Amino acid sequence: MAAAPVWSVDPRTGKQREQVAVEATAEEVDEAVHAAHAARGALADRAVRAAFLRSAADLLDGARDQLVEAADAETALGPVRLTGELARTCYQLRAFADLVDEGSFLGVVIDHPDPSATPPVPDLRRYKLPLGVVAVYAASNFPFAFSVPGGDTASALAAGCPVVVKAHPDHPATSELVAVVLRRAAAAHGIPEGVLGLVHGFDAGVDLVRHPLVTAAGFTGSVRGGRALFDAAAARPVPIPFHGELGSLNPVVVTEAAAAERAEEIGAGLAGSMTLGVGQFCVKPGLVLAPEGAAGDRLLKSLTAAVSDTEAGVLLDHRMRDNFVAGVRERGELPDVDAPVTPGAGSEHTVAPGYLTVPAARLAAEGVHDLLLEECFGPVTVVARYTDAAEITAVLSRLPGNLTATVQLSSDEAAGEGAAAGLLAELTPLAGRVLVNGWPTGVAVAPAQHHGGPYPATTSTSTSVGGTAVERWLRPVAYQSTPEALLPPELRDANPLGLPRRFNGRLEH
Amino acid sequence: MAAAPVWSVDPRTGKQREQVAVEATAEEVDEAVHAAHAARGALADRAVRAAFLRSAADLLDGARDQLVEAADAETALGPVRLTGELARTCYQLRAFADLVDEGSFLGVVIDHPDPSATPPVPDLRRYKLPLGVVAVYAASNFPFAFSVPGGDTASALAAGCPVVVKAHPDHPATSELVAVVLRRAAAAHGIPEGVLGLVHGFDAGVDLVRHPLVTAAGFTGSVRGGRALFDAAAARPVPIPFHGELGSLNPVVVTEAAAAERAEEIGAGLAGSMTLGVGQFCVKPGLVLAPEGAAGDRLLKSLTAAVSDTEAGVLLDHRMRDNFVAGVRERGELPDVDAPVTPGAGSEHTVAPGYLTVPAARLAAEGVHDLLLEECFGPVTVVARYTDAAEITAVLSRLPGNLTATVQLSSDEAAGEGAAAGLLAELTPLAGRVLVNGWPTGVAVAPAQHHGGPYPATTSTSTSVGGTAVERWLRPVAYQSTPEALLPPELRDANPLGLPRRFNGRLEH
Repeated sequence: MAAAPVWSVDPRTGKQREQVAVEATAEEVDEAVHAAHAARGALADRAVRAAFLRSAADLLDGARDQLVEAADAETALGPVRLTGELARTCYQLRAFADLVDEGSFLGVVIDHPDPSATPPVPDLRRYKLPLGVVAVYAASNFPFAFSVPGGDTASALAAGCPVVVKAHPDHPATSELVAVVLRRAAAAHGIPEGVLGLVHGFDAGVDLVRHPLVTAAGFTGSVRGGRALFDAAAARPVPIPFHGELGSLNPVVVTEAAAAERAEEIGAGLAGSMTLGVGQFCVKPGLVLAPEGAAGDRLLKSLTAAVSDTEAGVLLDHRMRDNFVAGVRERGELPDVDAPVTPGAGSEHTVAPGYLTVPAARLAAEGVHDLLLEECFGPVTVVARYTDAAEITAVLSRLPGNLTATVQLSSDEAAGEGAAAGLLAELTPLAGRVLVNGWPTGVAVAPAQHHGGPYPATTSTSTSVGGTAVERWLRPVAYQSTPEALLPPELRDANPLGLPRRFNGRLEH
Repeated sequence: MAAAPVWSVDPRTGKQREQVAVEATAEEVDEAVHAAHAARGALADRAVRAAFLRSAADLLDGARDQLVEAADAETALGPVRLTGELARTCYQLRAFADLVDEGSFLGVVIDHPDPSATPPVPDLRRYKLPLGVVAVYAASNFPFAFSVPGGDTASALAAGCPVVVKAHPDHPATSELVAVVLRRAAAAHGIPEGVLGLVHGFDAGVDLVRHPLVTAAGFTGSVRGGRALFDAAAARPVPIPFHGELGSLNPVVVTEAAAAERAEEIGAGLAGSMTLGVGQFCVKPGLVLAPEGAAGDRLLKSLTAAVSDTEAGVLLDHRMRDNFVAGVRERGELPDVDAPVTPGAGSEHTVAPGYLTVPAARLAAEGVHDLLLEECFGPVTVVARYTDAAEITAVLSRLPGNLTATVQLSSDEAAGEGAAAGLLAELTPLAGRVLVNGWPTGVAVAPAQHHGGPYPATTSTSTSVGGTAVERWLRPVAYQSTPEALLPPELRDANPLGLPRRFNGRLEH
């Protein structure tokens, strides 16, 4: 059987642009994993991998025009957004380089012997080692930041783990270009190019997660695809951690007082957030609890105006467009659901943004309206109108896990008055990031960031954005009664590398 | 159908002592989980839960004589060992109370806004929250330290998570007694007694891991039982983390030079470690690579003398005794396997310790001798005699994951000479704890401890002993642009609780 071709497709026309590659056979996946495994020793030196990450950022910056053009041609995300995304990606690579230099992620703990403990404590020294080859499943909606050079890859390399990326079929040409750049950065530091493998094809992705030398996986995508790979990772003879980001509704609660105070601002802000990137963000606000009554009506009026002013856009591929059109139609046909601005098909290759409304009471108990509690990828949101706080609580109690949960408060509430604290307490169990008076789109790269949440937001308690993302690819090891001469330098009393650590119980840095 | 009775059995006679309880029905498991879930709010205050853990330790200490007597009657582990184990358990509870007070496990990270970042960073503040109800599966071999009041329970309570324990059938009476003590400690601090649930029965254990309100599980036991529960946890509609410790061979490498220098000491030390607690430790050294030749012969002579001097002992239950007797017989019948001291049945209720030898070359490739690479619970070890370093490497490359890996070195090697560094590098990928010139039994409770390792040693990268065990029961949450008045005190700039944290990138404590 001939190898299946991998085409780069222009979503603005639906036409094939060029054949980029062929889908990887099981043998080719095996070769990529072995090459990555063989490269792991070259990542052992932290200084080398920090330099590699910085070179990768520099070379990606240098190739910006070519990369943005390639990505735009097959994603239609536009040069402004893609330029920003590439800058974010480079920033992230450099942030992980800084983190590698600082070394607190190694989690160094040193305990000198304590014969008085129960039982007695021998000399014990613990730090964290890279797990080994990491499989990264690229996302459709971020050809850079959650793809070949994205947070999963950057954090895995920072941890000292070689990577094999399963490219997303929506941007294979960009993936190939970026892989070449990353390998050039590796080669500049004497790291074998196999440190960054790239494979195409659905079957290749399954082969990858089952490969005995693959030690962990990172995934960003759909619930269906992510769960299938999660299940495969768990079913291996030797199960591996699977850090998947699968889906999120990202609820927003607008209090009565907030609507009264800022209806127009909130309506416009919501329109901007839900249509940003043609609604193709994992943190798009997909369900908004807004009050019935005059203030809520003002909010909707503002939302209607802003969404009506938003142009139709091109989704990442035609399957997504079909799903969006069918998804919004099915939702719109539910009883008591209205569409002040009807979302759906635009011109032949575009979709038009819109939003739906429903009485919140319809979501308070199991029924056909549960469809509205499922993520719908694309420029649509559902505004559920509530009449009292009990309805808010009832709807929130029915939500699955989320990446984010947002509350819009009045200025008095933001100062701690009224039901604000109670609302935050209700939202916190639902999500990995809780926002006040902001919008969830635009995920900052920062040490305090957490991009994850209860299932199905993520399949683990980890984050895929921010410094702590590195923790996913490490395992601890403790050395007991090991002579100084045989200890890794990270674990020596003298701390020759100046690492932050816990030394005989006390934190040191 | 009448509820199945749960009997306390005397392993010294095989006779039923008393009926302790009945196996929990699905409804009773549901009740226990709901009661635990309802108690979670009472654990929210860190000062309260630290006080609870200390009271639990005090009350367990106070009930020592009764608890040790009860545990000895159904485990035959003997009062000396059990008194030490209870002291360790109380030490552990107090260590977790100290950890709760210190608060670094909360992982506080605060980032002030940074408009210059790409993309701009808003105000972000992250810490860790308890996951919710934790299921703990108690071990057979530690009626205190890895059972109802053990490390899983202590670390979960420290994290703020209520616990439902699935009791081990080898010590149901002890489990009930301890649960009463822990609930009394809870009540003393106004915490509902449901914070510590206890259920008996195999089916109850399966119901527990499948319960929608159970958010994570800790397990110590066999590969077969642990893997079945791991699979059930992964197959849930909402999968949960399953931290299982399943099995470990705990390899030991004795270098030629070490044997030449300390053959007698090593032989005696090995005998002590492998027969300690009648060989019923998860870190029992189960495979020893010792050199062929005169030095190795001296080691075996010493081992033979010490093992021959060791009395027969009572295993925890008769099924274990049957498995041990059958397991050592099957291993002993393999080609080229000798038994300088034959392990097997002792008197009617005891087993006699012993050890087997085999040429290391027999383990270097797949074959019937692979049985020797499987853990055999009880007082037996396998000494594989090697002729050169290549044979050591060949055998090590065939081992599954382990809790520990040990090397016995000469004094020159311990100072860094010869092959010592290379051997450590070979052992490190195999285990979560690497020991030099020690024995793996006796797992210290200390911040630097790591009790875990590559599968099947554990099903995750976490530890079940030491302070970092608490990390298993937490998930991060980040608050974005949240006004001071609505922030939890842990995340306020002024740091009113004096927590260690990362503040605008800098570590503070």
